[in-house]
Amino acid sequence: MADPLVTLTSDFGGTSPYVAAMKGALLTVNPAAKLVDLSHRLPPQDLRFASFFLRSAIPYYPEGTLHVVVVDPGVGTERAVLYLESGGQRLLVPDNGCWTALAARSRQPPRVIRVSERRYWRSEVSATFHGRDIFAPVAGHLSLGLRPEELGPVADSWIKLPWPEPAITPRAIEGEVLVIDDFGNLITNIPGEAYFQNLHRVRKITVGGSPVDRQVRTYGESAPGTLVALVSSAAMFEVAVVEGNAARRLGAAAGTPVRIELDNPPAAGGQS
Amino acid sequence: MADPLVTLTSDFGGTSPYVAAMKGALLTVNPAAKLVDLSHRLPPQDLRFASFFLRSAIPYYPEGTLHVVVVDPGVGTERAVLYLESGGQRLLVPDNGCWTALAARSRQPPRVIRVSERRYWRSEVSATFHGRDIFAPVAGHLSLGLRPEELGPVADSWIKLPWPEPAITPRAIEGEVLVIDDFGNLITNIPGEAYFQNLHRVRKITVGGSPVDRQVRTYGESAPGTLVALVSSAAMFEVAVVEGNAARRLGAAAGTPVRIELDNPPAAGGQS
Amino acid sequence: MADPLVTLTSDFGGTSPYVAAMKGALLTVNPAAKLVDLSHRLPPQDLRFASFFLRSAIPYYPEGTLHVVVVDPGVGTERAVLYLESGGQRLLVPDNGCWTALAARSRQPPRVIRVSERRYWRSEVSATFHGRDIFAPVAGHLSLGLRPEELGPVADSWIKLPWPEPAITPRAIEGEVLVIDDFGNLITNIPGEAYFQNLHRVRKITVGGSPVDRQVRTYGESAPGTLVALVSSAAMFEVAVVEGNAARRLGAAAGTPVRIELDNPPAAGGQS
Repeated sequence: MADPLVTLTSDFGGTSPYVAAMKGALLTVNPAAKLVDLSHRLPPQDLRFASFFLRSAIPYYPEGTLHVVVVDPGVGTERAVLYLESGGQRLLVPDNGCWTALAARSRQPPRVIRVSERRYWRSEVSATFHGRDIFAPVAGHLSLGLRPEELGPVADSWIKLPWPEPAITPRAIEGEVLVIDDFGNLITNIPGEAYFQNLHRVRKITVGGSPVDRQVRTYGESAPGTLVALVSSAAMFEVAVVEGNAARRLGAAAGTPVRIELDNPPAAGGQS
Repeated sequence: MADPLVTLTSDFGGTSPYVAAMKGALLTVNPAAKLVDLSHRLPPQDLRFASFFLRSAIPYYPEGTLHVVVVDPGVGTERAVLYLESGGQRLLVPDNGCWTALAARSRQPPRVIRVSERRYWRSEVSATFHGRDIFAPVAGHLSLGLRPEELGPVADSWIKLPWPEPAITPRAIEGEVLVIDDFGNLITNIPGEAYFQNLHRVRKITVGGSPVDRQVRTYGESAPGTLVALVSSAAMFEVAVVEGNAARRLGAAAGTPVRIELDNPPAAGGQS
Repeated sequence: MADPLVTLTSDFGGTSPYVAAMKGALLTVNPAAKLVDLSHRLPPQDLRFASFFLRSAIPYYPEGTLHVVVVDPGVGTERAVLYLESGGQRLLVPDNGCWTALAARSRQPPRVIRVSERRYWRSEVSATFHGRDIFAPVAGHLSLGLRPEELGPVADSWIKLPWPEPAITPRAIEGEVLVIDDFGNLITNIPGEAYFQNLHRVRKITVGGSPVDRQVRTYGESAPGTLVALVSSAAMFEVAVVEGNAARRLGAAAGTPVRIELDNPPAAGGQS
């Protein structure tokens, strides 16, 4: 049998000793855990980005994988640590809503446990580093086969993170830039599906008022430097500069309005 | 027996969920695969850097290691995906030439297969994310022992990436900056060997016209701040600032001319 | 039994092929080694940061873990390579003192061996890349069970790196910024303990002359933007901006003076 998979996601950054200490604390509990780094360079304390990240990555893992997520602006306050199961995946997260957009993809309600049994924590818990002192050893014990109900009581409420929904009207789809990826591509909150369904009547696409040059199916279709609209690998509507940086070109940031203007609907008929 | 080694190289960046999704898709096919990150921070869509990177890193791996490389400006176009064997290593790459400089190090011609058998891909293939939908599952199957010929037909032609060759004359070696590493060191296209063979008659070294202070065998030989020339670990002629950044100091970039002026050859004799 | 753990720490950067080549050279000797990346983004050639990093991370690993550290400004000079055991951990390091602050945490003197037996190195050793040519294969052999005394003679002297000690007087604790982490938090050389012991009589805290707003136990206690003092996860006194960047706000760098002014000691009595 393969060693138990444990993934690690954080905003600790590439230079910090915290990632290293966390891995050590986990491996001290279970040296056979198979660690997989998802990323440790999430934008610091940006729960919206973390939401997007988890939603885009976690569903691709083998059933039963344990995912440890430490993006935790509330560390040291009374915020809880949660263990949860959703869509076949297992997560250990701060109770800050970073996972609720992911869980919304599943039809089943999540199973959530409030991690409170201190016997599975490091004996000394610092005020600022729960990643090392709580998340890592608890993940180690879970990867050894500890039954989740040993961690604490079932939770029936938790923080939900609002996820901006686009407005879809007969004349336009109005959304916003959700996050900007490492290439400077603008990933929006408009589902790829909503865009595809209206593809034949798109009249104009703007980002913060600036028009997009072309609609494409893939980056390779247009010349370098073209400002294109397409559906990304995260299945979201996206605006990009071919071999360039759209965020810089347009001065766009998370929250910048994105508007897809539509022609009249087919059945609308009518004058002019 | 050790678990099968699969290395991952991409330009997805440290913040993106794409690396994470790709690992998940691979581990879903083979949870026992032993993943090794080479780098996910290659300069975006820079095939020349990718060439240099693969050439410098891949030959050090155990025979039979599988290397997945996703630097893929042509994703979603008709460019093929290739499986190939060269120098004892196995690679899964986009057909964009990123691997031809590596294969040129081997005397044997590569064995190349065009990956076309969709049964080993994810059932739904997005237009923009072949890393997750084709490369990852195919690598998973190969690491499980799938015979490469199951992936598709043998290929007898592929894209070759031009590799800039230096001009070596009796009076000078003329090359250029190939890539700049994370320290700002200038790695050139001049083979270390060509430099060493003419070491006793080097008269002057310039980068974009600026003279280099000293020739050294190693960084530690000169005081911090000195502009030195040496042969790097990648066996290429290199210009560096000791404990500093040569690219910034000289305003150099990929393509900046590098010139090693030579004294008359020993046997040349002659007047004056 | 779990595969042998080998951690890797370097300043090679995320883009460089050197990390990849080093992993390959290690796995070529022992394909079953279980590699754990601590970080490859340490500030280049910054031994003080490396000291801090190792001290903060290494103690959390399972006993007997082998840690390979390549932050090596002296590569190619006559500096030695050391194998050492301290506090239950095993390290392979350049003899530049990067590990002495870590070893100072242990009461036992370290066991140190000078790595000189070339039979465990790569057959060709470049002048600039001992990570690949010496550290990696030696680590591979150690992870296979090679007895350390086979590597070379016991060493009885080595480079020690000075670690700046704070001045603690009845009226003040005077230290300095030790390093800046990825969040821009200022980690000082003042032990958390020294601060806690005097907590009830702290009058004022300054960084480079600028006063700190509040003392907190954890980031979450104050509003975003507040300049706070606290004890970090590395057990050091730290100054931070809640959800912000203290280094940028204060223009602070490694070495910037940090001063904790104290009220008169309890037993001091006396006139005014």
